[in-house]
Amino acid sequence: MPTTDPQGLSATLQLAFELIRRPSVTPDDLGCQALMIERLERLGFHIERLPFGDVENFWATHGHHGPVLAFAGHTDVVPSGPHVHWDTPPFEPCIDDEGMLRGRGSADMKGSLAAMITAVERFVSAHPDHHGRIAFLITSDEEGPAVDGTRAVVEHLRERNERLDYCIVGEPSSTDVLGDVIKNGRRGSLGGVLHIRGVQGHVAYPHLARNPIHQAMPALDALVREHWDGGNDFFPATSFQISNLRAGTGATNVIPGDVEVVFNFRFSTEVTHEQLRSRTEAILDAHGLEYQLDWTLNGEPFLTAEGELVEAALHGVEAVLGRRSRLSTSGGTSDGRFIATLGSQVVELGPRNATIHQTNEHVRAADLDDLSRIYEAILAKLFTNGTAQP
Amino acid sequence: MPTTDPQGLSATLQLAFELIRRPSVTPDDLGCQALMIERLERLGFHIERLPFGDVENFWATHGHHGPVLAFAGHTDVVPSGPHVHWDTPPFEPCIDDEGMLRGRGSADMKGSLAAMITAVERFVSAHPDHHGRIAFLITSDEEGPAVDGTRAVVEHLRERNERLDYCIVGEPSSTDVLGDVIKNGRRGSLGGVLHIRGVQGHVAYPHLARNPIHQAMPALDALVREHWDGGNDFFPATSFQISNLRAGTGATNVIPGDVEVVFNFRFSTEVTHEQLRSRTEAILDAHGLEYQLDWTLNGEPFLTAEGELVEAALHGVEAVLGRRSRLSTSGGTSDGRFIATLGSQVVELGPRNATIHQTNEHVRAADLDDLSRIYEAILAKLFTNGTAQP
Repeated sequence: MPTTDPQGLSATLQLAFELIRRPSVTPDDLGCQALMIERLERLGFHIERLPFGDVENFWATHGHHGPVLAFAGHTDVVPSGPHVHWDTPPFEPCIDDEGMLRGRGSADMKGSLAAMITAVERFVSAHPDHHGRIAFLITSDEEGPAVDGTRAVVEHLRERNERLDYCIVGEPSSTDVLGDVIKNGRRGSLGGVLHIRGVQGHVAYPHLARNPIHQAMPALDALVREHWDGGNDFFPATSFQISNLRAGTGATNVIPGDVEVVFNFRFSTEVTHEQLRSRTEAILDAHGLEYQLDWTLNGEPFLTAEGELVEAALHGVEAVLGRRSRLSTSGGTSDGRFIATLGSQVVELGPRNATIHQTNEHVRAADLDDLSRIYEAILAKLFTNGTAQP
Repeated sequence: MPTTDPQGLSATLQLAFELIRRPSVTPDDLGCQALMIERLERLGFHIERLPFGDVENFWATHGHHGPVLAFAGHTDVVPSGPHVHWDTPPFEPCIDDEGMLRGRGSADMKGSLAAMITAVERFVSAHPDHHGRIAFLITSDEEGPAVDGTRAVVEHLRERNERLDYCIVGEPSSTDVLGDVIKNGRRGSLGGVLHIRGVQGHVAYPHLARNPIHQAMPALDALVREHWDGGNDFFPATSFQISNLRAGTGATNVIPGDVEVVFNFRFSTEVTHEQLRSRTEAILDAHGLEYQLDWTLNGEPFLTAEGELVEAALHGVEAVLGRRSRLSTSGGTSDGRFIATLGSQVVELGPRNATIHQTNEHVRAADLDDLSRIYEAILAKLFTNGTAQP
């Protein structure tokens, strides 16, 4: 029988239960942050609520001197879809017979939030006069537009010259087992919406029209074949993907007047978004196209190649699990892209990501307890000169 | 002041008024055929109503021996769109101050129908014992699916081995002035709907997906560049046009699972539709695509390169207007494609097509009287050994 009663569970799992029970679909927080704030205030944290638009955020700090380590994360979750598609109700957490904590947000990323809070609780209790400062940077919009969330908080911190040396983002970085992968960077993301114009006409009179689909094809093919860069030790080669293509009136006898092409670059640190823009436009120009191109820079690439934080994270996983993590920059974007602009070292370290954004999202319950111990070991490594007391 | 009262107009224009007053948008006939049938019965025509589905058709014949000349046409019209966009109401015919008969169907093709009826009335009255047989093949669905219209009537005639030597389709063939162009054929039309399959995925993980847009582009470009044939004296080169293209979920971060491509061939008599199909598939296969391709043969090409009908039509225009017509096979499809499969000589001869399918459709009123005289002259040329009595 699945366990639905949090009584008797670890402090981490009890808090995870409480967070998952709140159906905080982006941008709703529904009291998740209040739960966290209550716990942090009890530890003596200084709390600053930073709402922007309809997004709730907070910044919390403990300690007065030295480098700042922030735990970053989000209380919002992606929609569950119809509950009938789930084996257990998505917002009624339980631990099943295989020891899996089930529910929307269990992996992405309420489990990590709970592990952060309990790690800090144990660490601060054991080391009330720890070196450095511990911070939390929490938002309720990471899964949505992500405009009024971490990005806005980072701008706010930047304006007052707030120091942020190290940041651990609780995104589910693990692939096969907890801690096998630590993300130490992410590729940049640059989007384009391209309109290629032709001249509409009747298919029976092609000489009176100019088919923009026909014109677009060699140019798009050239963009697909372009070698943008070769990547480097930390990043795979920059990739160009067309995600959407749309042309035509629906009628089979009309040559359309334009084509819309939506594409996306995931780019390494070997190329800048300015270079990608100008190289793309040069290829389109070389094909003599009449076009309009609107760009959106979703995020610059960031990389924490080495340093105290990466060392501490590798140490933490090894100390708790006896496992050597692999550093990786693969995958989609995360709020790390905003935080890195403050010059911080940033890593993402969290549970397995196998079921995120899916029905029946779940995570090994024991992994959350281990994750809490890993976070605590990282704090100890950075803020006690390696003299952490368990 | 525009003339809205048909009193005092020619018989052709009076009948055109009566036909235009009936808003017979495809497939509705709304009594147009009954008007024509009443006139033909009075002349001694044998009438056969041939409804198929919701389409009204009739076949009428006069005379008992010798070659058959059929006048072919349609009583249905394309929709008018909002009446407020018209200078005069689309279904209230009038002759304006420039002598233009205005109204939906005036050019396409109720004006021609009226001219056919009055031409036959005069001819039969003058030549009650004419050679050959005169026929009418009239439908109420030429502008729509065209499945239960002329095509079905032709199949019916084929089954009983009905003879059809010559056919004059009343489609508006003229470009700048009445009779400047006679269509003596049309290109074939072959449509294809192509689904190219890839593997859907996240744009951040392109190695786990297979982008069907990227795969499609070189193959589609090869189809666009292919030299299908060089045309001939009567037909321009076969043309390939992509009319619609659709791929993508709308999301900018998803590589789509398939691409839909809708294309159309307009083809000459230098290539068969079977050849076009196999050559298209060979090109797709050579690019290693996984695809499904559904074909629709809209019409085979047909050509009446020379013969008695073309001669009689050229003679008719010259006799009435002193003008030498140009033969052409350009433009879209017409019901001639179905009739030609009976082995008939087919020409299209009607008023100017400048305003068809548009708001404020109109035709020179005097052109319809001239067109009636041209039709009469063709009858005389073919069925009186050139001894027509005006």
